[in-house]
Amino acid sequence: MSFTRLDGRRHDELRPVTITRNWLDHAEGSVLVEFGRTRVLVAASVTVGVPRWRKDSGLGWVTAEYAMLPRATHTRSDRESVRGRIGGRTHEISRLIGRSLRAVVDYKALGENTIVLDCDVLQADGGTRTAAITGAYVALADAVANLRSRGALKGNPLKDTVAAVSVGYAGAQPLLDLAYEEDVAADTDLNVVMTGSGKFIEVQGTAEGEPFSRDELGVLLDLGELGCRQLTAKQLEALA
Amino acid sequence: MSFTRLDGRRHDELRPVTITRNWLDHAEGSVLVEFGRTRVLVAASVTVGVPRWRKDSGLGWVTAEYAMLPRATHTRSDRESVRGRIGGRTHEISRLIGRSLRAVVDYKALGENTIVLDCDVLQADGGTRTAAITGAYVALADAVANLRSRGALKGNPLKDTVAAVSVGYAGAQPLLDLAYEEDVAADTDLNVVMTGSGKFIEVQGTAEGEPFSRDELGVLLDLGELGCRQLTAKQLEALA
Amino acid sequence: MSFTRLDGRRHDELRPVTITRNWLDHAEGSVLVEFGRTRVLVAASVTVGVPRWRKDSGLGWVTAEYAMLPRATHTRSDRESVRGRIGGRTHEISRLIGRSLRAVVDYKALGENTIVLDCDVLQADGGTRTAAITGAYVALADAVANLRSRGALKGNPLKDTVAAVSVGYAGAQPLLDLAYEEDVAADTDLNVVMTGSGKFIEVQGTAEGEPFSRDELGVLLDLGELGCRQLTAKQLEALA
Amino acid sequence: MSFTRLDGRRHDELRPVTITRNWLDHAEGSVLVEFGRTRVLVAASVTVGVPRWRKDSGLGWVTAEYAMLPRATHTRSDRESVRGRIGGRTHEISRLIGRSLRAVVDYKALGENTIVLDCDVLQADGGTRTAAITGAYVALADAVANLRSRGALKGNPLKDTVAAVSVGYAGAQPLLDLAYEEDVAADTDLNVVMTGSGKFIEVQGTAEGEPFSRDELGVLLDLGELGCRQLTAKQLEALA
Amino acid sequence: MSFTRLDGRRHDELRPVTITRNWLDHAEGSVLVEFGRTRVLVAASVTVGVPRWRKDSGLGWVTAEYAMLPRATHTRSDRESVRGRIGGRTHEISRLIGRSLRAVVDYKALGENTIVLDCDVLQADGGTRTAAITGAYVALADAVANLRSRGALKGNPLKDTVAAVSVGYAGAQPLLDLAYEEDVAADTDLNVVMTGSGKFIEVQGTAEGEPFSRDELGVLLDLGELGCRQLTAKQLEALA
Amino acid sequence: MSFTRLDGRRHDELRPVTITRNWLDHAEGSVLVEFGRTRVLVAASVTVGVPRWRKDSGLGWVTAEYAMLPRATHTRSDRESVRGRIGGRTHEISRLIGRSLRAVVDYKALGENTIVLDCDVLQADGGTRTAAITGAYVALADAVANLRSRGALKGNPLKDTVAAVSVGYAGAQPLLDLAYEEDVAADTDLNVVMTGSGKFIEVQGTAEGEPFSRDELGVLLDLGELGCRQLTAKQLEALA
Repeated sequence: MSFTRLDGRRHDELRPVTITRNWLDHAEGSVLVEFGRTRVLVAASVTVGVPRWRKDSGLGWVTAEYAMLPRATHTRSDRESVRGRIGGRTHEISRLIGRSLRAVVDYKALGENTIVLDCDVLQADGGTRTAAITGAYVALADAVANLRSRGALKGNPLKDTVAAVSVGYAGAQPLLDLAYEEDVAADTDLNVVMTGSGKFIEVQGTAEGEPFSRDELGVLLDLGELGCRQLTAKQLEALA
Repeated sequence: MSFTRLDGRRHDELRPVTITRNWLDHAEGSVLVEFGRTRVLVAASVTVGVPRWRKDSGLGWVTAEYAMLPRATHTRSDRESVRGRIGGRTHEISRLIGRSLRAVVDYKALGENTIVLDCDVLQADGGTRTAAITGAYVALADAVANLRSRGALKGNPLKDTVAAVSVGYAGAQPLLDLAYEEDVAADTDLNVVMTGSGKFIEVQGTAEGEPFSRDELGVLLDLGELGCRQLTAKQLEALA
Repeated sequence: MSFTRLDGRRHDELRPVTITRNWLDHAEGSVLVEFGRTRVLVAASVTVGVPRWRKDSGLGWVTAEYAMLPRATHTRSDRESVRGRIGGRTHEISRLIGRSLRAVVDYKALGENTIVLDCDVLQADGGTRTAAITGAYVALADAVANLRSRGALKGNPLKDTVAAVSVGYAGAQPLLDLAYEEDVAADTDLNVVMTGSGKFIEVQGTAEGEPFSRDELGVLLDLGELGCRQLTAKQLEALA
Repeated sequence: MSFTRLDGRRHDELRPVTITRNWLDHAEGSVLVEFGRTRVLVAASVTVGVPRWRKDSGLGWVTAEYAMLPRATHTRSDRESVRGRIGGRTHEISRLIGRSLRAVVDYKALGENTIVLDCDVLQADGGTRTAAITGAYVALADAVANLRSRGALKGNPLKDTVAAVSVGYAGAQPLLDLAYEEDVAADTDLNVVMTGSGKFIEVQGTAEGEPFSRDELGVLLDLGELGCRQLTAKQLEALA
Repeated sequence: MSFTRLDGRRHDELRPVTITRNWLDHAEGSVLVEFGRTRVLVAASVTVGVPRWRKDSGLGWVTAEYAMLPRATHTRSDRESVRGRIGGRTHEISRLIGRSLRAVVDYKALGENTIVLDCDVLQADGGTRTAAITGAYVALADAVANLRSRGALKGNPLKDTVAAVSVGYAGAQPLLDLAYEEDVAADTDLNVVMTGSGKFIEVQGTAEGEPFSRDELGVLLDLGELGCRQLTAKQLEALA
Repeated sequence: MSFTRLDGRRHDELRPVTITRNWLDHAEGSVLVEFGRTRVLVAASVTVGVPRWRKDSGLGWVTAEYAMLPRATHTRSDRESVRGRIGGRTHEISRLIGRSLRAVVDYKALGENTIVLDCDVLQADGGTRTAAITGAYVALADAVANLRSRGALKGNPLKDTVAAVSVGYAGAQPLLDLAYEEDVAADTDLNVVMTGSGKFIEVQGTAEGEPFSRDELGVLLDLGELGCRQLTAKQLEALA
């Protein structure tokens, strides 16, 4: 297909991806991840011990919180701290990131340690949740390495890697890694979270406009698999 | 396959489904929907006018709110009104229900009217969100009929029907319409929202245990299509 | 007196009262109580142990929470969970229900167990608080029976029964068990909570219009006693 | 009866009552009211205009807010502003005060003006709500006089006076105007709000211990009438 | 200088200051402090024990909370408890008062006791935070004396006294102890908190209009020192 | 003096200061400002119009919000959005930043436009509020230039520049621009906000340990003037 996009990409091409490790000095793992102009700062914080409901289980815990700076977007949004409540979208994405990372964690090997992944969107241009997941895996790997270097782990708590990408249909045209304007225009939007070994952790497809057929879903899943494979390579390269 | 479930169902069998219309006296549409022991009361409330951001657009609006009574579940949960904040799960499901119904609404034909779908879970035994969506469509249809009977509509704002069902893997066994204990045990959990014409509005699959393969996803989608087709028939029967 | 009401009742006649036990599968006691079109679902939840301030006292605790579904009423109200705070009316009624039930509880016989009575108004047509109290007594009795059947109680923690009814003046006309439209029109509104043995637990009279005289108060108390006696009979019949 | 109380009062004797007008410099009406050691500061604030739901009705509005300073009581309580929510008791009393005062207001004569009565308990020793109502009437009268002196009123918006007192049973002994320790020990607690012309605005009786009989209620109402008559005299004296 | 102010004071003259001890019956220390028409009620509450983060340190704790009654000001403000959140100004002043008092406390001598200083503004006419600090010192001294009389202290936890005053520039004219109207008109506003021994605990100067020079700051500090010296004398007199 | 600090600085030496303009793509002005390891992202957002209370005045408005990412600090802090309320420190600093910038703004020249300065601390190592003010001035200048380039301004709304620095005493040693560990150890902490023309906008000095003398205050003000002068030069260089 010879469809060309606003930024000149092919329909099956990722935006330039940058993963900068150790962007912060205090956090046990930290990554500035960029998918084009989307820029997410991920900090992994390790604490000894687990939430009360998990105490004395011998098992660890991993969780995530997602948020956007007020001027990450084209026009300024009010802070959720000022409004006094967290919006539904924020909740939904925080939960998605946490679930995605937990899918590759061996809690027993982690022991009774907790890792919190704070994903703060400094600039948003579509795909903030998929960039957050992709970056969070790297920050998590660094936090795990930190624990290991302190002799706090028995085995390797990471069973696999995790990457995520968005795909969608703009009219009849399937697109990989949607930028904000493409996302707004898309009829269908699918977020795919995959392991490095090629299995699905999460598939979330929504018809924003026209409902989609089983065949169309298949095309999007193909594209998502392609994107996740490339992102996995970027992660391994960054961690090398 | 001859797998038998706790409640004696076949792996590809829905629980008994009951849709009772006009359960309430005041609401423009109301349905008590039951998927086995899961019992959701849906009330559709019509108001003339739309939210401020949509004024003078000539377009209508449909939205949903989901909640659980504190003792809907096996053990009592605190009320979200008492805690002073809505949890992430509640937010996430409210948004899913709203999106699902909006996918079949022609806003122009609805005109500047708003329909709110309140889905309150009186008893929960798995599948509360899919029961809510399935019941909400019927309540919505009644509310639309009410508007139409008052001469408030130009055309038909409902372009299609909507039904939803959960499917999942318990080990190697794919299951349709998971009850609570099955859901807890499932490795993979997929919620499928479909139109009566057989297209997808939403597909949300999550690996709670092991990540799933593309083939396994295919099997679950087959089961989901089967379930939605049967639920659509139940809806039409109830509305007849 | 031959005064006839909107729904054809005599001035001293209750609406049809229905008490359906075991409406829920999980709760230790549950009742759907109906005073005409007013419909309240009461769930009694038992937990072992008591709130911190009562620990090691050997005494139990009973409390109640009251709430309305958003479309219980003629026009939809916002959810208190969404507004992030509980309104004064909700607080006031929750406290009234709790006090009313506690008046017949022998905490020593209950032992260090807590029973929470959740009273959720599914449909409101006046008298929701009196219906809630009347139904809550039956749910409480079932929860106590449940505890007893488990051998968790030494004696009988219920010293008496409790029922409640509203009475009021519409102009010069005293009325028993006011429906919503009667309540709105009433000058004086009195809620009476009584034990089965004919004593008062709570008397709350308010002049919504004209202040009332001592004689008028007497007439209302007579009517309230009459209504409570009949409701007590209904409760015993349901529990038989 | 020759029963003597902790502070030496007869059973049917009020505590020393002081009503100090114009305790504040800015408020249109202000009163420091004292029932023994109970000390409530009431400020009446007048604003031109009424809440939105009452606009263009030609009718005024009167409302009240009750609160306690954190160290009004024997041990310090947390501030409701710090906890971020208003408790049920505060809500309940604010509503009671507002209703009580509104019962003697002619909204037409008040015109589209709003009067807010802030009742802040500086020191609590039982009877804070009845002291608040009794003081609030005087502050309201001063605020009305202020409006009248500005030529903002057509007629007299006050149809009667309002006073309130608590009565109760300590064992077999009926008591007027309960101090804190008496209130704690009382079996039955009744708040009576009356007009100067001897009619009831509100009667709220609660069995804290043993339920009470119709005869016992009669004795308490007699005492309450006696107390309100004396408080009315105090109010008129203060306003003279 | 012969500048005369609205209330006839010289530029370097305090308003009449009154410090009334034991204004409340329950609190371990309590003061009604008046700077002209500004009237603040301070209650000092002692509790045995310290916040969790300070346990088993052997050290005590002192903290403060500041608030205004809704009609302390010229026009009524909404209650922070009703709005459900504490405003920035309230937070800021509470923190200032706490810091100021803590500066003269010897935590070791206080032992594991906590003293909370509640400063509630009954009427505001400028300088509420400085009046609060000045009054809070006296209430704190009384609370400490109370602890000492109970034999709960080893030594004297008060190393010095604390007083505070506001100073400012109205145009070219420096003024001591600004009343509300002067404060509104001032270009620069400086709050000075000093010990009885003449050292600074806190200096907070803000240019509301024109930025100020080093020389102007010097003039204001001179005035502030003068005012604090006089307030210290008033405190000692009150405590004598 | 030859005192040497942890990071090798002289007592009167600033940390390395970096001001990176246009760090964001959407905001009208944006700066990443670094004082050593302290890193604050400032975004200036322009909106046409002013808050309601300022409408039709012909005057503009400038305000600021300060916040910290949860892992900006050595150990993770909970998000204020999650806790549902903004802490006192955050409120206090937001107000300080807003006041500081407003001191150099000519509202008339700004016209009815609003500029919000969001200062988000990405990493904290002491001096976050002074870095925020220093960076916010540059972001504000860029936002003003943006407005001017659109022809939206009549004159120059910036009357001067603003910079800020912290100074303090570590024992007998005065220090400029305190890093976190120095701040924790300091007896006295002074934040100085100055204009480029050498006048004070805000002076906030606090005795964390020992109260300070007038002479010691003088030494700190000298150091603060020195630091602000150097920061002003950095700002002008960045804007050149």
